[in-house]
Amino acid sequence: MEKLHALCGRPPVEIRLWDGASVGPSTEKGAIEIRDRSALFRLLRQPEVAFGDLYSSGRLTVHGDLTQVLYLLMDAMGRRAGDTPRLLRWLWKDRGPRGSNEAAARGNIQHHYDLGNDFYSLWLDRAAMQYTCAYFESPDHTLEQAQLAKLEHVCRKLRLEPGQTVIEAGCGWGGLARYMARQYGVRVRAYNISREQLAFAREKAQEEGLQDRVEYIEDDYRNISGRCDRFVSVGMLEHVGPRNYRALAQVMRRSLHPEGLGLIHTIGRNRPAPLNGWTQKRIFPGAYVPSVAELMQLFEEGPFSVLDVENLRLHYARTLDHWLARFRAHRTEVVHRYDEAFARAWELYLAASSATFRSSGLQLFQVVFAPAGNNTLPNDRRDLYCQPAAPKDA
Amino acid sequence: MEKLHALCGRPPVEIRLWDGASVGPSTEKGAIEIRDRSALFRLLRQPEVAFGDLYSSGRLTVHGDLTQVLYLLMDAMGRRAGDTPRLLRWLWKDRGPRGSNEAAARGNIQHHYDLGNDFYSLWLDRAAMQYTCAYFESPDHTLEQAQLAKLEHVCRKLRLEPGQTVIEAGCGWGGLARYMARQYGVRVRAYNISREQLAFAREKAQEEGLQDRVEYIEDDYRNISGRCDRFVSVGMLEHVGPRNYRALAQVMRRSLHPEGLGLIHTIGRNRPAPLNGWTQKRIFPGAYVPSVAELMQLFEEGPFSVLDVENLRLHYARTLDHWLARFRAHRTEVVHRYDEAFARAWELYLAASSATFRSSGLQLFQVVFAPAGNNTLPNDRRDLYCQPAAPKDA
Repeated sequence: MEKLHALCGRPPVEIRLWDGASVGPSTEKGAIEIRDRSALFRLLRQPEVAFGDLYSSGRLTVHGDLTQVLYLLMDAMGRRAGDTPRLLRWLWKDRGPRGSNEAAARGNIQHHYDLGNDFYSLWLDRAAMQYTCAYFESPDHTLEQAQLAKLEHVCRKLRLEPGQTVIEAGCGWGGLARYMARQYGVRVRAYNISREQLAFAREKAQEEGLQDRVEYIEDDYRNISGRCDRFVSVGMLEHVGPRNYRALAQVMRRSLHPEGLGLIHTIGRNRPAPLNGWTQKRIFPGAYVPSVAELMQLFEEGPFSVLDVENLRLHYARTLDHWLARFRAHRTEVVHRYDEAFARAWELYLAASSATFRSSGLQLFQVVFAPAGNNTLPNDRRDLYCQPAAPKDA
Repeated sequence: MEKLHALCGRPPVEIRLWDGASVGPSTEKGAIEIRDRSALFRLLRQPEVAFGDLYSSGRLTVHGDLTQVLYLLMDAMGRRAGDTPRLLRWLWKDRGPRGSNEAAARGNIQHHYDLGNDFYSLWLDRAAMQYTCAYFESPDHTLEQAQLAKLEHVCRKLRLEPGQTVIEAGCGWGGLARYMARQYGVRVRAYNISREQLAFAREKAQEEGLQDRVEYIEDDYRNISGRCDRFVSVGMLEHVGPRNYRALAQVMRRSLHPEGLGLIHTIGRNRPAPLNGWTQKRIFPGAYVPSVAELMQLFEEGPFSVLDVENLRLHYARTLDHWLARFRAHRTEVVHRYDEAFARAWELYLAASSATFRSSGLQLFQVVFAPAGNNTLPNDRRDLYCQPAAPKDA
């Protein structure tokens, strides 16, 4: 027990056992309760996966604020990274994938995104159904404001102009594509392999009368065809895997006009590491989060010039806090539709993700790039910030 | 001859021989003249080094605008990169260094920077003696305005506040250190191993009454001691070499406060490549320009979070154009002090560097970073642009 606490870097969190034993300071900050002996053994053997599974089934509970307790745990573990005994490191080693072929990609994406539009509608923003990091120009902005601000920020970085053609790889429920077409008068071809999402996206485009400017295409990014002035991908790279970066770079290369611009928005890391085992197994099969140097390999494959990288890590923590609060507000419906374990798993996933961004275990990078040799570049970034906030009407 | 032109990617530039033979289009864009047979053979055997040496000695001349002709050449060669016959690739392969120890570093730096303050004063800006990329808020700003704007841009990215301590690694003639102390009221410890530059820097600080706020230290970056709120290095990384990135990262790590910020300003590349052989041999011994992914390795070594990367490639091309124009305005003095070959070598170096930035063979990256886990980060980058331009007085 004492050893377990030390292995975790002695977080200021109490760890309690089923028999009343405990270790760590007893403060109001929170406590982790392990409720039976075999749960403890599972936790020691395969900590990442077991923590999630045991939490979901209720055999491990957290007292106090879930996100905050997880943050304290991660922060402490982050400080002692590297001191893990060798046997444990081997036992805990990631053996996950580094890329997936088209068929696997389809399965992986369906696992997560085809849970149902109704499910995501419960807790995502009502403005644009964005399941990616928002941009909080002010900490007291609503999730809706922050998601629209994200879309606007992406559009400005792309320096969109009316009449341009845009290819979007991995368009989710199509919110960005519609925003670009509506606010900037561009024509968008948006790719996705989640059928559920595409049905929603097409319906919305129809409702908004944008069907002649936005085309939603059910296909893999590897099959993207045609040329464009702008290439954009928000939150897809996490599902691509470094083994496929060359293939994606080739797609970007052949699609993008020599005087074009592109933007990749992706979760990243300070240094290479596998995705948390439980998230990999239960939430995002096939996902891989690149380190910042791994991410740059994508652009070196082009070759593209990296023009601008912005890290929005704390914006993602805040986004996740909003999602978790809304998820909890609809908890009864979720339990009714799925079950208690499902609800607990998703609460853990959202809280743990927030805590990971806050403890710097994950970063959020927006990268603007251009084909090497494009000399029609923006001179600086003043236009991202010092233009009137309201986008021009198409 | 025909083959030589094809190897260069058929640039729209004429290549003429001593005997009147020529290849390529005869336009007003310019021409390259190879003035004797052995010059041609040297060029074929070791093109990069020979081009520079032959140009310096006048056995190869360029008609028309030097920078423009070099740009057309590089642009054409860039497009056909990879098609070089294997034998030539082997022959032309770089066998240069990837890092230098302290003694070698000292020799390399003296080779270049101890040419004499008088020499650099002839053609660098008169505002801050900056031998690094300027920042042109407007294309018609003077070099002095643009160099001061660069210093201001760096200070804003560092979010300097009065009373903070700053360590600067590789301070040149000390212009940034004095600017930070004067305009932002911080205390600076600035390192350099060029004695000539330090003498100049100290004298200037004395003149400006800044000697109690700026300390110039003659030592290698590896020997940096003490702690700081901000770590900054402008134009030194090119002399460090990737083999020493870990050592530099350790210095940054042990110096920088956990809630601190840092900035590295460096020349970079879209993908790994050796420095031009002639530049390496005659101008910058020991220098190495990292690719963007190699550059990120420096921060992964920390580990640091990369917060912001900006690419100022075309600003460097413009800076070099200014330097070349001023150099030429003082050409007679340079020839008098050194000789014709020296003047031609420097003209070529400045013109070729401008052409390389313009053809995307080189990039200029400013990277803002923070120790992983620092949560006292700026929320966005609006403050870089939407504050009053005039810096506060200390």
